[in-house]
Amino acid sequence: MLPEDRKWFTEVCKEAGSAQSWVIEEHLAHEVTEFQTIDIYRTAKWGNLMVIDGFVMLTGRDNFLYHEMLSHPALYSHPAPKNVLIIGGGDCGTLREVLRHPEVHSATQVEIDERVTRLAEIHFPELCDSNEDPRAHLLFEDGLEYMRNIDPGSIDVIIIDSTDPVGPAEGLFGPKFVADCFRALGPDGIMTQQSESPLLHPHLIAGIRQNMEKAGFGDIRTLGFPQPCYPSGWWSATMAAKSGSLDDFRQEDIRHRPFPTHYYNAQVHQAALAVPVFMQAL
Amino acid sequence: MLPEDRKWFTEVCKEAGSAQSWVIEEHLAHEVTEFQTIDIYRTAKWGNLMVIDGFVMLTGRDNFLYHEMLSHPALYSHPAPKNVLIIGGGDCGTLREVLRHPEVHSATQVEIDERVTRLAEIHFPELCDSNEDPRAHLLFEDGLEYMRNIDPGSIDVIIIDSTDPVGPAEGLFGPKFVADCFRALGPDGIMTQQSESPLLHPHLIAGIRQNMEKAGFGDIRTLGFPQPCYPSGWWSATMAAKSGSLDDFRQEDIRHRPFPTHYYNAQVHQAALAVPVFMQAL
Repeated sequence: MLPEDRKWFTEVCKEAGSAQSWVIEEHLAHEVTEFQTIDIYRTAKWGNLMVIDGFVMLTGRDNFLYHEMLSHPALYSHPAPKNVLIIGGGDCGTLREVLRHPEVHSATQVEIDERVTRLAEIHFPELCDSNEDPRAHLLFEDGLEYMRNIDPGSIDVIIIDSTDPVGPAEGLFGPKFVADCFRALGPDGIMTQQSESPLLHPHLIAGIRQNMEKAGFGDIRTLGFPQPCYPSGWWSATMAAKSGSLDDFRQEDIRHRPFPTHYYNAQVHQAALAVPVFMQAL
Repeated sequence: MLPEDRKWFTEVCKEAGSAQSWVIEEHLAHEVTEFQTIDIYRTAKWGNLMVIDGFVMLTGRDNFLYHEMLSHPALYSHPAPKNVLIIGGGDCGTLREVLRHPEVHSATQVEIDERVTRLAEIHFPELCDSNEDPRAHLLFEDGLEYMRNIDPGSIDVIIIDSTDPVGPAEGLFGPKFVADCFRALGPDGIMTQQSESPLLHPHLIAGIRQNMEKAGFGDIRTLGFPQPCYPSGWWSATMAAKSGSLDDFRQEDIRHRPFPTHYYNAQVHQAALAVPVFMQAL
């Protein structure tokens, strides 16, 4: 039982038979858009909380883990990431991390639901710091469609920062989309995709890895990291390189990075590449 | 709100303003002992669940992470661990992992509450596999007292597998106890202590590290690992060596270990030593 002297937001993870709850102080926004239902809460201890269709997207307190791990490992695994594409990522936290890299000339974010970004600008302004950067291009359209029509070989790094593989994001976990990503990338190209919980969703991770392999990617790695606000508190990003080894990342450049991080450094990057025993089977 | 068509066990983490819940199918045991209240539940998806004084101790599904990370890094950091001492650890999962190491001659478990072990034998029999091993010594007494009277230099590895630093375990987080551990260890001695969540309890980790430093330990490292059933899903063990560097662990021996693990391997050990940026301040 949750104590009734406080208000709670609860996310039930049906397939895991578990739930997580946060004490909330105010329901800041509730919008039903063309694509989904978005809620924003002010919590007692986790900053603001964004929820889409009942699933937690991020909190102010722990999103640094996810956003750093979805962006920096991929960018530091590419020799010279100039053109970066983010599919999804409407809260703009990944965009902000990408634009911390001075070598990036252009970062395009393709989010299907403009309201996610507009609400993030109000309720997570710190994540939207870089939206006015001249290198930032915010598009509000269907990422699947966008990828079908993109110039082959035009992108260095693609980041799939999506919701779970149900609803609008489902196609982003399919083989066709991954093949389109492969085609869009230059010869040193790298893609990375949020790939759910190593403990709860190993089959989903296996499917993502198969799609990447079939698309023609050479080296494929699943990086684990903590993400307290998601079911099991343990999350992953699966990264794939067209050529070369993902072991050869720019360690020296990480050590001399001209921007702050809260979690990520060269040690953490190396550590995230470690494969626990039960994941070796994937 | 938790759906009312299922029964739930909920742990509220007051200081974090969050809670975690599991669907339960049966309340298997409820005992009020001299020291605490123990409950065992059968959950829908996490196997059996042990709860002490309302706090989750372990589930059948994810305890492998905690037990492997509390035992193997310490044992493989010692050149030849013969005599191992476990303080707490009543569920016997750490004891089982310790006794997988053939070089261990003796493993003594000092648990204050015999009922924890007796209930584990019934409801977590897989963790109690090694209780009949002739090298296993199960004592049911106060770990603080035990450590005060132990022969100096008699132990190779001490593992503090305790509950949270409230109630009977409080003293295990104090400087006197850590000084007793230092004295009990041989010249290559290593201690490791469960040290709560890097995200939620950084000050507690800092305190443990200070105690270890004051006691005279040379190298001190905090190892992070996932632990879904604990608040934030991210947990730690803090390891301290009397002499030498904890970077020099027996990697070759890990690769040729004569027993199975589900999470731990040499890569995972190395990865757990990585220090995220925000932890460097500790």
